[in-house]
Amino acid sequence: MARTLVLAAAQLGPIQKAEGRDVAVGRMVRLMEKAHRRGAEVVVFPELALTTFFPRWYEEEPERADRWFETALPSAATAPLFEAARRYGIGFHLGYAELAHEPDAAGRMRKRRFNTAVYVHPSGEIVLKYRKVHLPGHAEYDPRRGVQHLEKRYFEVGDLGFPVVRAPLGGTEANIGLMICNDRRWPEAWRVLGLQQVELVMLGYNTPSLNMENRGFEAHHLRVFHSHLSVQAGCYQNACFAAAVAKAGTEDGHELFGHSIIVNPQGEIMAQATSWEDELIVAECDLSMCDLGRRTIFDFARHRRPEAYGRITAQVGSEAPPAWRPRPAG
Amino acid sequence: MARTLVLAAAQLGPIQKAEGRDVAVGRMVRLMEKAHRRGAEVVVFPELALTTFFPRWYEEEPERADRWFETALPSAATAPLFEAARRYGIGFHLGYAELAHEPDAAGRMRKRRFNTAVYVHPSGEIVLKYRKVHLPGHAEYDPRRGVQHLEKRYFEVGDLGFPVVRAPLGGTEANIGLMICNDRRWPEAWRVLGLQQVELVMLGYNTPSLNMENRGFEAHHLRVFHSHLSVQAGCYQNACFAAAVAKAGTEDGHELFGHSIIVNPQGEIMAQATSWEDELIVAECDLSMCDLGRRTIFDFARHRRPEAYGRITAQVGSEAPPAWRPRPAG
Repeated sequence: MARTLVLAAAQLGPIQKAEGRDVAVGRMVRLMEKAHRRGAEVVVFPELALTTFFPRWYEEEPERADRWFETALPSAATAPLFEAARRYGIGFHLGYAELAHEPDAAGRMRKRRFNTAVYVHPSGEIVLKYRKVHLPGHAEYDPRRGVQHLEKRYFEVGDLGFPVVRAPLGGTEANIGLMICNDRRWPEAWRVLGLQQVELVMLGYNTPSLNMENRGFEAHHLRVFHSHLSVQAGCYQNACFAAAVAKAGTEDGHELFGHSIIVNPQGEIMAQATSWEDELIVAECDLSMCDLGRRTIFDFARHRRPEAYGRITAQVGSEAPPAWRPRPAG
Repeated sequence: MARTLVLAAAQLGPIQKAEGRDVAVGRMVRLMEKAHRRGAEVVVFPELALTTFFPRWYEEEPERADRWFETALPSAATAPLFEAARRYGIGFHLGYAELAHEPDAAGRMRKRRFNTAVYVHPSGEIVLKYRKVHLPGHAEYDPRRGVQHLEKRYFEVGDLGFPVVRAPLGGTEANIGLMICNDRRWPEAWRVLGLQQVELVMLGYNTPSLNMENRGFEAHHLRVFHSHLSVQAGCYQNACFAAAVAKAGTEDGHELFGHSIIVNPQGEIMAQATSWEDELIVAECDLSMCDLGRRTIFDFARHRRPEAYGRITAQVGSEAPPAWRPRPAG
């Protein structure tokens, strides 16, 4: 039986450093209005959708970056998104920088900062929250870089795992999971969601067109290919849909490559953004398409062999293999 | 410093059920001769390269399939491959059905059958052996299928894990790993090799153009796409080269889709077979290309978070997620 969801990916053009949240939120409300006119039931916004991608700016005192973080959701600044959701009956995904006052692992209350995403029901209730696990970049100022990538400075590693819930979604129900940006390159993240029968992965990203770390080595024209390859393989190998949604264009002088996509469980791109501006792409997703893969080639219970996967959880980094030498000729 | 390897993938056209090993071996020796003329240092042959893909035929008594298995390597039938390797100074990868007399997990000596691959040094020594872990298909006769896929009947699950060794390869050394056919769709297999710093994955396959299990559901035109997607993602996400080599064409009336490829650590296809016949494709691989990914975006020690990957080894099949319900309006 078809379980149809009209899904929208709302790519955002650049948000300049000087622009307040009101500018971004206003643009997002207009995209929700457009999504409503296009019949969408769910809208997916990118990672850190309310501000510029601030981890490109170094602060000696990390606290000085706190102005980029949200201490509550909804808030005065983000309330219009929740109102639009109710008005149009549309659920939405939002990425933002989260500043929480919470106990840490040792039980001490303190300020904690995460790169976070939520899926919000049309009622305004938060259905699912995720904190980014795979933080790219570095923690200290890197003088070799023309632009910094300080996610490891400003954010803690997410502490919520990769949760999946079954929730109302448009006129049906679906198993939804979240990941953020760099997570999409890690098959482990996809598989942990797949092992919870995820049917729709929502993920936002802010990915530069040039990787300053690899300048002079990496083929820049492959950046979009790598992003799409990772999402398409993740969807195929876990029999799920994904909306991978970018912030795009020249933000504070630095290019983000855009190319947001909606992908089906066969790994096919159903819709793709082709501008570097605010752009809405929409696809009608038959969620029952997820059943084929998980009943056959990716029926995990029948085919997976965890006894051969031990290294994946037993070690972090790679280990050099033993050497083989030919017998001396004799 | 460039570490160059001239790598050949030797796709085989169909091998009919009535044909003896001498036919296949003769064709392979001619491909090794051609590889030598093209300057290749290593040749990769497909899975079960010596016979027809016999798991499509049901035998009530599995022992009746023993004629498709090798009890020794080299043997009288396969000796010409080892001689050609020595003659041309070429290493080769070979997939074959292995019948071993070995202790089982309980320590009892018995006949054991595996879908196996080896990499053979030009001297004729076996450098590395792998037994297929992800056996597709089914163990019992399936009357709904026009053609059977009985790998789970004829083979035990491989018991050697996914080993990697550093070995002489052409004029250099490389970390080599093996997988077989369906393994390539499983990111776990790639990652276990990647965690051992694999630089070159050799893998053979026999993949039907039609998946009889999914007939009427799966888009057949996506079969090659799925194969390539899996190999390209595996190479990119583990910063390695791969030679993915098919048996191709109409074998015993059943199409195998071919499209053998050599892929680089950026996930790019460097060479592709476009016939359904015996066909040699060659690529010059700079193995130092593997360094970029593992120094940066896929520096596992810096970026992996095994504490979030627990499900990958803790569970086999998937588990349904908890349900979320909106608060009653009130």
